Amino acid sequence: MKNVVVRNVKRTDAEMVKRLGALGVATVHEAHGRSGLMKPYLRPVWAGGEAAGTAVTVLTHPGDNWMIHVAVEQCQPGDILVVGCSADNTDGMFGDLLATSLMARGVKGLVIDAGVRDAKSLREMGFPVWSRAISAKGTVKAALGSVNVPVVCAGVNVIPGDVVIADDDGVVVVGRKDAADVAAKGEKRHADEDGKRRQLASGALGLDMYNMREALAKAGLVYLDQPEGD
Amino acid sequence: MKNVVVRNVKRTDAEMVKRLGALGVATVHEAHGRSGLMKPYLRPVWAGGEAAGTAVTVLTHPGDNWMIHVAVEQCQPGDILVVGCSADNTDGMFGDLLATSLMARGVKGLVIDAGVRDAKSLREMGFPVWSRAISAKGTVKAALGSVNVPVVCAGVNVIPGDVVIADDDGVVVVGRKDAADVAAKGEKRHADEDGKRRQLASGALGLDMYNMREALAKAGLVYLDQPEGD
Amino acid sequence: MKNVVVRNVKRTDAEMVKRLGALGVATVHEAHGRSGLMKPYLRPVWAGGEAAGTAVTVLTHPGDNWMIHVAVEQCQPGDILVVGCSADNTDGMFGDLLATSLMARGVKGLVIDAGVRDAKSLREMGFPVWSRAISAKGTVKAALGSVNVPVVCAGVNVIPGDVVIADDDGVVVVGRKDAADVAAKGEKRHADEDGKRRQLASGALGLDMYNMREALAKAGLVYLDQPEGD
Amino acid sequence: MKNVVVRNVKRTDAEMVKRLGALGVATVHEAHGRSGLMKPYLRPVWAGGEAAGTAVTVLTHPGDNWMIHVAVEQCQPGDILVVGCSADNTDGMFGDLLATSLMARGVKGLVIDAGVRDAKSLREMGFPVWSRAISAKGTVKAALGSVNVPVVCAGVNVIPGDVVIADDDGVVVVGRKDAADVAAKGEKRHADEDGKRRQLASGALGLDMYNMREALAKAGLVYLDQPEGD
Amino acid sequence: MKNVVVRNVKRTDAEMVKRLGALGVATVHEAHGRSGLMKPYLRPVWAGGEAAGTAVTVLTHPGDNWMIHVAVEQCQPGDILVVGCSADNTDGMFGDLLATSLMARGVKGLVIDAGVRDAKSLREMGFPVWSRAISAKGTVKAALGSVNVPVVCAGVNVIPGDVVIADDDGVVVVGRKDAADVAAKGEKRHADEDGKRRQLASGALGLDMYNMREALAKAGLVYLDQPEGD
Amino acid sequence: MKNVVVRNVKRTDAEMVKRLGALGVATVHEAHGRSGLMKPYLRPVWAGGEAAGTAVTVLTHPGDNWMIHVAVEQCQPGDILVVGCSADNTDGMFGDLLATSLMARGVKGLVIDAGVRDAKSLREMGFPVWSRAISAKGTVKAALGSVNVPVVCAGVNVIPGDVVIADDDGVVVVGRKDAADVAAKGEKRHADEDGKRRQLASGALGLDMYNMREALAKAGLVYLDQPEGD
Repeated sequence: MKNVVVRNVKRTDAEMVKRLGALGVATVHEAHGRSGLMKPYLRPVWAGGEAAGTAVTVLTHPGDNWMIHVAVEQCQPGDILVVGCSADNTDGMFGDLLATSLMARGVKGLVIDAGVRDAKSLREMGFPVWSRAISAKGTVKAALGSVNVPVVCAGVNVIPGDVVIADDDGVVVVGRKDAADVAAKGEKRHADEDGKRRQLASGALGLDMYNMREALAKAGLVYLDQPEGD
Repeated sequence: MKNVVVRNVKRTDAEMVKRLGALGVATVHEAHGRSGLMKPYLRPVWAGGEAAGTAVTVLTHPGDNWMIHVAVEQCQPGDILVVGCSADNTDGMFGDLLATSLMARGVKGLVIDAGVRDAKSLREMGFPVWSRAISAKGTVKAALGSVNVPVVCAGVNVIPGDVVIADDDGVVVVGRKDAADVAAKGEKRHADEDGKRRQLASGALGLDMYNMREALAKAGLVYLDQPEGD
Repeated sequence: MKNVVVRNVKRTDAEMVKRLGALGVATVHEAHGRSGLMKPYLRPVWAGGEAAGTAVTVLTHPGDNWMIHVAVEQCQPGDILVVGCSADNTDGMFGDLLATSLMARGVKGLVIDAGVRDAKSLREMGFPVWSRAISAKGTVKAALGSVNVPVVCAGVNVIPGDVVIADDDGVVVVGRKDAADVAAKGEKRHADEDGKRRQLASGALGLDMYNMREALAKAGLVYLDQPEGD
Repeated sequence: MKNVVVRNVKRTDAEMVKRLGALGVATVHEAHGRSGLMKPYLRPVWAGGEAAGTAVTVLTHPGDNWMIHVAVEQCQPGDILVVGCSADNTDGMFGDLLATSLMARGVKGLVIDAGVRDAKSLREMGFPVWSRAISAKGTVKAALGSVNVPVVCAGVNVIPGDVVIADDDGVVVVGRKDAADVAAKGEKRHADEDGKRRQLASGALGLDMYNMREALAKAGLVYLDQPEGD
Repeated sequence: MKNVVVRNVKRTDAEMVKRLGALGVATVHEAHGRSGLMKPYLRPVWAGGEAAGTAVTVLTHPGDNWMIHVAVEQCQPGDILVVGCSADNTDGMFGDLLATSLMARGVKGLVIDAGVRDAKSLREMGFPVWSRAISAKGTVKAALGSVNVPVVCAGVNVIPGDVVIADDDGVVVVGRKDAADVAAKGEKRHADEDGKRRQLASGALGLDMYNMREALAKAGLVYLDQPEGD
Repeated sequence: MKNVVVRNVKRTDAEMVKRLGALGVATVHEAHGRSGLMKPYLRPVWAGGEAAGTAVTVLTHPGDNWMIHVAVEQCQPGDILVVGCSADNTDGMFGDLLATSLMARGVKGLVIDAGVRDAKSLREMGFPVWSRAISAKGTVKAALGSVNVPVVCAGVNVIPGDVVIADDDGVVVVGRKDAADVAAKGEKRHADEDGKRRQLASGALGLDMYNMREALAKAGLVYLDQPEGD
């Protein structure tokens, strides 16, 4: 595999990103046919952060953050940097200096299948990060990777320009061509949920709302009372 | 094993639950002869939450939350829903709609050996949850399990109606018939700790308070000074 | 290996500890030639805590906190208690009573390669702790270990009297004789970073600031444009 | 919880154990309604070993094997020793001396939710062991547990006298009163599988044998050809 | 994402598969620019097995093996079945019946990011399997996935028709269009290694063979003798 | 920390190594006061291998095996190469070429807190290796570490020249100055075990042999019979 930096990536339309971002990770994941969700070991460095943007991708190697420096130049306002690594690694590949640089370019957040450091500063700067670990471990700049090639990050194959949505529930990725369809389905789902929430709050049962009783009986579920005695 | 829903479960008396809840997990665990504690991979979704209640139990399967919907109907005010899974799984089996439904029924919290989603909403709703993971991963409704049968959750065998106490230190379970004895022992322990805390705060040593010096010497512990030199 | 308690340990000078503490974990780790960092599974029990002090070391065994009680007596103002364990264990070896005792002696914090309990109280007391787990699991007092001998904690060999610096990024250890050199290098690094941060905030690229372009080209990195098409 | 040793445990009938043992773990697990299976982190110390017997249970604590010595006396020919631990632990609680003692009493194997040592000797002696780890780590004899009380081992609540079946696929537990029913169902399943195996070997498809095509179509599965092009 | 089965997949040429298979995983991975390697948690169910073939891909869900049954029909002689799962799962999705069926169709092996069962039979049948776990845990047939779409398996995005090479060192994937180039580079590397092996066996040092001494000195490596004394 | 290679390391006497090697890991660990044992995640690449030698130590970084090449030159007949890594890493840092080189120099084995590759060849060559993982993942040669400085490997601080004993039970390290004492104690223990084994084989109970009954009763253990009934 050659080591390349691809410029001029086709990004998903900003309006679409905004619509998907408004839905949140869980709704987008459901609207996307339950696909595109990164593994739950990726956690937000600080709770409550949210980000929606277009993917600039990076492939790095364990203990080496050279390509993240290369990737910064390729970022545009509205992007999210997505970093995959060729092997499991928790080293602190990213800290407050790189965050400063990304914020200066209008980048919305970082998703990294490795570690980050300067956790307190990232929280104070309000720069949202989803990572596999927090670690002060320093890295070298020695091995080439690539920028803006398809990269597997936390179990999802990310194509440059894909939509990335992240919040306290995790990170989900939607392909550029699927975005409109997923947004429409998600908005419908979101509208439906408000009604359901009101019904459930007033004491209705999901068993009835979703008509589950017949299917449960057909599958063989049996109701019985606890026998007498102590 | 048949798939059943047991109604009319015998629950531990509410007053007993209240007394145990006031003691907190660490004290109840000690008063219970250091038993009944769930494994520490169960963590609160938001820090500071506390819950005490009687167990309604659910057995689910990986990637499937059907039986949680079934269990809601069996819940009464003062219950805690306890969900075990037939294999390790981090999927988001529970979110804000189910939490709305449980709160409408007076349920005090959720303990689940799997994942949950809508983490931010759960925190905002003030519904306390202890889970193995946070994940937006959606689940199907296809495989029967059971409700209100004995279920192993995070290493503890939970009987429906048992007392469940949960806080930032984890989750502990006390059997219905052991509750009075554990509460009494825990309250005594709690009273003793205040005195100890005052003594330690004023500089007393645990070595003296607990009379450890003789036992240590007998076991062969040797005190020595660091040799001279650099 | 004999079971001993070593008294009169040579501690690193307090002024040096203060200088290193002011730099934070990530900077000290870099200034120390990227060594001395504990593994990232050690996490703060509450975010935002910071501690700098001299190591009093303890070797314990799984499920047994006897030697922590022994170690308290050896602590002086400005110390940090560092607890290693002879095998992986998450039991709650330390809680609010021991924290009260350490605070009464002027100890700055706890670093423990095992579990702790009373998480909420530790946060309220403002006593900073870095641990492998939070668990209410109680421990016995039965097996001798040692105090103030070299102990491996989370992957680092800690000598009594070493400097320990801990914050949200983790825990780093600096040997007594290396402290002055590391502090000087760290302070230089810290000063340099302010300038870099300003440059990056104004849009400068790390690629240029660190003169990476030539090395990248030499290593074979290729820039190319995304091909036309959909 | 009191520390007790229960004698005179009711064991499942030996003939029933033999019938279940002949079926193997996977078949018994299926015949048992897919329940009773221990978590897959329990692995055989040596491949190819098989064991079937009645459970003598032990509750131990991390780093402490005292109760295993107590349990040996309660073992009878045809038993399997099942060891749970009050917290995750990999210490080598069991080795060739204890295996010699168990073999002298006619015990069929060991299932332990902790570590064992003398792995090579165990293999040479032909004593089958399923454990969480292999570790030479020595243990103390200091903390009481219990023998022949219900114990959670690798996620399953084991009652003394239950049937335990173990092979390369793991460990499954069947309650005394369920044994006859499970054996009958398992034997039917086993008989059916031979026919299926022959059909599949001759090229038949499971899709047809199990009549899946209609259900798949109804669920919405679509077949399509790869588009032309490169 | 729609649930589809893609027929008529373009497979890599059989001769190419054979050449890559002869090189083994480590050499192919190096020749492929150190890319395409699955994570090392995938392990062979039995040591010594080797397989080389073209990928038929399957996307399954936790606890559900329905789509594996669907995939069998799409397999041709020379294929390897590659199964990804939408979340981490160790359930036994595959056993000796499915292996019988695949062998009847000329399939060379199975690579599955989940569990398998009937481990002993798979070894006796000589059917090579690389999996994340061995577990007897049964699965349902309820949720649709897809067959012959791109699937992430153990960290690698696999395209149907890609070459899959597997041995005791793990599993590596090579794209259809890269196969010829990788085979050529791998064969050259393989030829070079024989010469190196002979030199090293006769006592030559890699330091000299690879001309490392100058680069090491330039990077600052210092040689020194251990000081006198004890 | 400077990057150095220390030559002329003082090694433990070969006769002492031989005596300790004859005892095996479990016995040496016990005779050493239950210290010096590496964590059990280090496993032999092939079962049945055994090695005893003097430590040549290496400090490497994730994804980089440069210093292993440097270390080969420092090895002498009777050494064991011990490789620590500055962060958790499973990359294949070592394979059959390096093994060929070490065997040519009379090295007895490898202990590495990272991954290795060419697993099948290592088994065929009869070169024993204990590692954290098997992985074909290639590494770069870019970052300096050190050779023959104290290195933490799998939780143990290893000093160059220490005795390293490894077998199926794991890896244990004994300091040069402790070797004679440990060997003597281990040989006594070994002699005692033969007698114990014979007694246990003839049906004696450890409860009696080790005089445990009184201590158990004093600690409060209660024997009782299972109540009548079903």
